[in-house]
Amino acid sequence: MSELRKDYITNRWIVIATERAKRPHDFKMPRESISTDTSQCPFCPGNEKMTPPEVYAIREKGTEPDTPGWTIRVVPNKFPALKSDKEPIMRANHIFYSVDGFGYHEVIIETPDHFKEIPERSLDEIAMLVRVWRDRIAELSSDPRIKFVMLFKNYRPEAGASLSHPHSQIIALPIIPKRILEELEFSKNFYWDTGGLCLFDMVIEEEKERKERIVYENDNFVVLSPYAARVPFEVWILPKRHEPYFENIRANEIESLADTLKVTLEAIRSKVNDPPYNLMLHTAPSDGKPYEYYHWHIEIMPKLTRIAGFEWGTGFYINPTPPELAARILRGEE
Amino acid sequence: MSELRKDYITNRWIVIATERAKRPHDFKMPRESISTDTSQCPFCPGNEKMTPPEVYAIREKGTEPDTPGWTIRVVPNKFPALKSDKEPIMRANHIFYSVDGFGYHEVIIETPDHFKEIPERSLDEIAMLVRVWRDRIAELSSDPRIKFVMLFKNYRPEAGASLSHPHSQIIALPIIPKRILEELEFSKNFYWDTGGLCLFDMVIEEEKERKERIVYENDNFVVLSPYAARVPFEVWILPKRHEPYFENIRANEIESLADTLKVTLEAIRSKVNDPPYNLMLHTAPSDGKPYEYYHWHIEIMPKLTRIAGFEWGTGFYINPTPPELAARILRGEE
Repeated sequence: MSELRKDYITNRWIVIATERAKRPHDFKMPRESISTDTSQCPFCPGNEKMTPPEVYAIREKGTEPDTPGWTIRVVPNKFPALKSDKEPIMRANHIFYSVDGFGYHEVIIETPDHFKEIPERSLDEIAMLVRVWRDRIAELSSDPRIKFVMLFKNYRPEAGASLSHPHSQIIALPIIPKRILEELEFSKNFYWDTGGLCLFDMVIEEEKERKERIVYENDNFVVLSPYAARVPFEVWILPKRHEPYFENIRANEIESLADTLKVTLEAIRSKVNDPPYNLMLHTAPSDGKPYEYYHWHIEIMPKLTRIAGFEWGTGFYINPTPPELAARILRGEE
Repeated sequence: MSELRKDYITNRWIVIATERAKRPHDFKMPRESISTDTSQCPFCPGNEKMTPPEVYAIREKGTEPDTPGWTIRVVPNKFPALKSDKEPIMRANHIFYSVDGFGYHEVIIETPDHFKEIPERSLDEIAMLVRVWRDRIAELSSDPRIKFVMLFKNYRPEAGASLSHPHSQIIALPIIPKRILEELEFSKNFYWDTGGLCLFDMVIEEEKERKERIVYENDNFVVLSPYAARVPFEVWILPKRHEPYFENIRANEIESLADTLKVTLEAIRSKVNDPPYNLMLHTAPSDGKPYEYYHWHIEIMPKLTRIAGFEWGTGFYINPTPPELAARILRGEE
């Protein structure tokens, strides 16, 4: 029997269409082939001149910027949506509000190896990536003109990746995006209504008790397919320690997150036919206001179905794979 | 120079990436071929037994239900996301809110002709479709268990259409979707703040004065590409007469909407290479509460780009085609 479910955090309702519960082999989306021609890849070693000059890199001692010898390399996006050479001045003219396209748009080239996605990397390599994520977010957040820093990873062209070499992206903005505002509003209300409880802590507690949507757990993180998952095999990675800012992640949590990312992305790859996905890091805004009620986390949305008209237009999704089934499949039990 | 812009209605910000302004020929998305085998099409005349029994039809006198002779035919979705044979009882258990999958999910087969999309139809044929939209929405809204009726049309497989025969869909829900709630909240605040003005009326007035984003206008409707368009060539069809409910559309407005739909969809087809699109009708909820501040309208989102990770995760879109350019192209001036 199908069921309407409300998201824990916001007022988003979705339908779990259980009568046509779909398993990984039921999804037949055409897939684009992935380029294996590394000679033309701007993210491969030796092609450093094909990108704008690097702004940050982890590289062997003695090697020059924009030459080989790096392990992780961060460059401005060649076609940035936003630029940092202007001031974010808000203009309001009747009902028209705008800000010049101020911001940062960076690409994190995660590895020199064109073919080495997160599941194939060592825990040390993934921990290094997490540290670079943290450092770049902290750096961009320190610009007082920036209100929110968005880290995301698009995997495969169907999820928006225009290059196949493993990379993630950061966009730093002078405004706070709508969906983050919603999460802030609802978690703030819950915090005040309950005299200081965190809505995300409550999700972790309730889901751990029920177990059925838990995908994985280690010392510091819980991975679950959320109760009102929008898409098949949607998963969230939640830190157990209440903390609004990803940038405040501790050394032992970095090791733990590396393990969590490897296990989760390996499960998605091997159990769900290596699907396209989008990974998004949600962290508190950097505008200096207090966000003690917020809880940073990662959301991963595999792209197995097409998004239809009313989903676009209404935020109301139909998900043919119940998250309980998704969790069992990702745990390897079905 | 790129620019951040806020939607007139909600708090959604988008980026207009003007430095790589894209025209229709710049979008190269792979397209699936469309089935031309009408013998296996469940929506073609003669194949009526391939669908569930019709719930409504406009047909020649003397013809039997579920046989040929119809002009427009409405059937339940064969794989409904929701069913009307249960009661919408809300369950709240800690942080888990659910409702049994109650609702209606219907398909409106717009024409017997497998190949006759809206731009190829006569104004009379399109007006007949608009009347069927109105009648079905009114009928489903009259069920007191229904709070919101959603009408949408997915065109081409990339926009979620699983069958190529021209059709639209209706989903009637026991809850109000998030995006509609947001529009209601913001238009209500504006109404109260201004002593009774409509935010959508204001958009029409301001945009008509500026002209640059107007795509088309007739006696009763204005078509524009919105100031903070999420995607290239997004257009909204706004009725000039303030009215919360689409179901209250008047006879002369139906004729006018037929003309508006034909002109708009023909412009999208001929100027933007016949792209996939999603069309959504936004009307006031049918839960009996007052919505005098709301203004029904239609949103059309062509699908020329892929939706990337942060757009999914944040509601923050990057649109490479300024709506002013989109409007000029759709008006045939570029």
